[in-house]
Amino acid sequence: MKTRREFIKKASAGALLGSGLLASCTKKGAGGPAVHTGQTLKWKLCTTWPKNFPALGTGANFLAEQIQSLSGGRIEVSVYGDGELVPALGVFDAVSRGTAELGHAAAYYWKGKHEATQFFAAVPFGLNAQEMNAWLHFGGGLGLWDELYASFNLKPFPAGNTGTQMGGWFRKEIRSVGDFKGLKMRIPGLGGEVLRELGATVVTLPGGEIFQSLQSGAIDATEWIGPYNDLAFGLHKAATNYYWPGWQEPGATLEAFVNRQAYESLPSDLKAVVAAACQATNMRILSEFTARNNEALQTLIHKHNVKLKRFSDPILKALGQASNSIVSSIAAKDAFSKRVFASFDKFRKQSIAWGEVAEGGIGQARALVF
Amino acid sequence: MKTRREFIKKASAGALLGSGLLASCTKKGAGGPAVHTGQTLKWKLCTTWPKNFPALGTGANFLAEQIQSLSGGRIEVSVYGDGELVPALGVFDAVSRGTAELGHAAAYYWKGKHEATQFFAAVPFGLNAQEMNAWLHFGGGLGLWDELYASFNLKPFPAGNTGTQMGGWFRKEIRSVGDFKGLKMRIPGLGGEVLRELGATVVTLPGGEIFQSLQSGAIDATEWIGPYNDLAFGLHKAATNYYWPGWQEPGATLEAFVNRQAYESLPSDLKAVVAAACQATNMRILSEFTARNNEALQTLIHKHNVKLKRFSDPILKALGQASNSIVSSIAAKDAFSKRVFASFDKFRKQSIAWGEVAEGGIGQARALVF
Repeated sequence: MKTRREFIKKASAGALLGSGLLASCTKKGAGGPAVHTGQTLKWKLCTTWPKNFPALGTGANFLAEQIQSLSGGRIEVSVYGDGELVPALGVFDAVSRGTAELGHAAAYYWKGKHEATQFFAAVPFGLNAQEMNAWLHFGGGLGLWDELYASFNLKPFPAGNTGTQMGGWFRKEIRSVGDFKGLKMRIPGLGGEVLRELGATVVTLPGGEIFQSLQSGAIDATEWIGPYNDLAFGLHKAATNYYWPGWQEPGATLEAFVNRQAYESLPSDLKAVVAAACQATNMRILSEFTARNNEALQTLIHKHNVKLKRFSDPILKALGQASNSIVSSIAAKDAFSKRVFASFDKFRKQSIAWGEVAEGGIGQARALVF
Repeated sequence: MKTRREFIKKASAGALLGSGLLASCTKKGAGGPAVHTGQTLKWKLCTTWPKNFPALGTGANFLAEQIQSLSGGRIEVSVYGDGELVPALGVFDAVSRGTAELGHAAAYYWKGKHEATQFFAAVPFGLNAQEMNAWLHFGGGLGLWDELYASFNLKPFPAGNTGTQMGGWFRKEIRSVGDFKGLKMRIPGLGGEVLRELGATVVTLPGGEIFQSLQSGAIDATEWIGPYNDLAFGLHKAATNYYWPGWQEPGATLEAFVNRQAYESLPSDLKAVVAAACQATNMRILSEFTARNNEALQTLIHKHNVKLKRFSDPILKALGQASNSIVSSIAAKDAFSKRVFASFDKFRKQSIAWGEVAEGGIGQARALVF
């Protein structure tokens, strides 16, 4: 899952520009006066997702509704999809400078601002959703994230998670690490860097072109998100080998960020409202992905006869080693990245030990019985 | 983890009765008038946990703080631990009749009210935390729970999760199913029923007596919660075999419930506040358990030389079969339980398939690399 270009746009900016939605918004710059009871704020929420995109766009809508209802209408929030107010990859800057008060995105989109942002979204062979939340809230992660975003005039909150993704759709089986050589695959971000290391030709494509490119053979493979969104794209009609696990995104954390002055000008109850709305959205989006993926996987297997394939142990080992080398190299870039990596890596080691015994242990046990 | 008697009481009711905490509370019966802006409500939150008990009691405190701060002080919440206002097992009735407005507990404590309550907390070989939230919010679970609790004049919300627990501490190794015969183990609830089926002598003990009983050999084994709370109890000093997985509680959901009239009398923004406060608490408690268990497991292994042991496949199969027979028998008790079991069981089947590929798949992959 990644970047603006890779989503199908369901509505163009122009189609909505004349609507009541935009007309109802007033421009509010950063650094306004403190908010007093009775005053109604009109906030703009810019997202990196197409408006109403399943689970992501609808999740952003939920965040807006939460802030509005929890504040008793004292904060009115208008939601803008990719391209409606700013393009997806302009969301960070727009909120930073106060063009919008609020953004909903995933932190790895901003690696151009700072490489360490990626630790707050997803890294290959990293943390799953439950572990990410634990690291952020009780392992020091959120403090580091806050420190990083403060330098961009933003206040960050975890606000969603996709859960573990799938490894992708492949036209041919991947039987050994050598099969990645020359493979033309659409896979963005750090996952793409890892596959490039193993000899693949990594391409980026807009969401709307993925299906066609895979079907025509213009690309040999693609990853997208998981069963729910992959089924909606019809990827099972374009390739037959559906691989797991999604080593490249073990649990992609979504984020909300608030313009720092807009946040600081809030009274304490509205600050609490923003934080709780993000927490509720965090839980809701992960729950939606989990339930819909559960269902969609059954549809793919039983209705569309999709065969699931697991990457072999030697392939996973090679992917893991290449991932480690790429991820740990980020730590070498600057002192801040080093601190983030150290905190993340320590938490990952602990999580691997406990996760194997706890959720992993019950998973194994259930597989024996059912 | 279970029942009032099994916690160490840190403060008696008497010690707090004369304090400012109780003095500041006014009695508010059920069915009061609708709340108007500006009016301050004084709510009592009764819990089944000892006051400030790690992660559980502190989680209830967080819920109270959230409601208070999100409402801008329009709802003041006083927290009562086990025995301070009513005994732990009286919390359900107290909130039902309006003695308190709010409860924080786990639904399996109320199996005496209705056997189906247990599906909303934890069942052996059931759902983990992420799956429980998905079932409740997107799989029909919460609708069923709401229907059940409405008949007791309560409005339920998921509000916490322990994550997967541990299988327990055993003085002797468990090498075969036969080793459960005659074993004297402290294990409450459905887990206890399962072990009884396999020939164990199941006992219940107050939390404060567990350590001593295990050390003296008065009992052969006990389960408690997980590394964080087990370490605090010092159980590693009383038995050397620490077994996983916690088949009996794969992810115990904690609940908040509100007196139905107190809830219905709230304006819509305060209704939203209660729901979001529960969601935020849900996320927070699970994150706290995950992070603390991560850390405590390292301490147990590296500082106290605890050896982790996994129940063998044949043992897990026997436990799973006995669990299935006991859990599915609840479905036979009445039409409502049948509906809950059908919904739960369908979601479990889907979760097992997706969980193995997703979070389970990345868990396996990480184990290969790290």
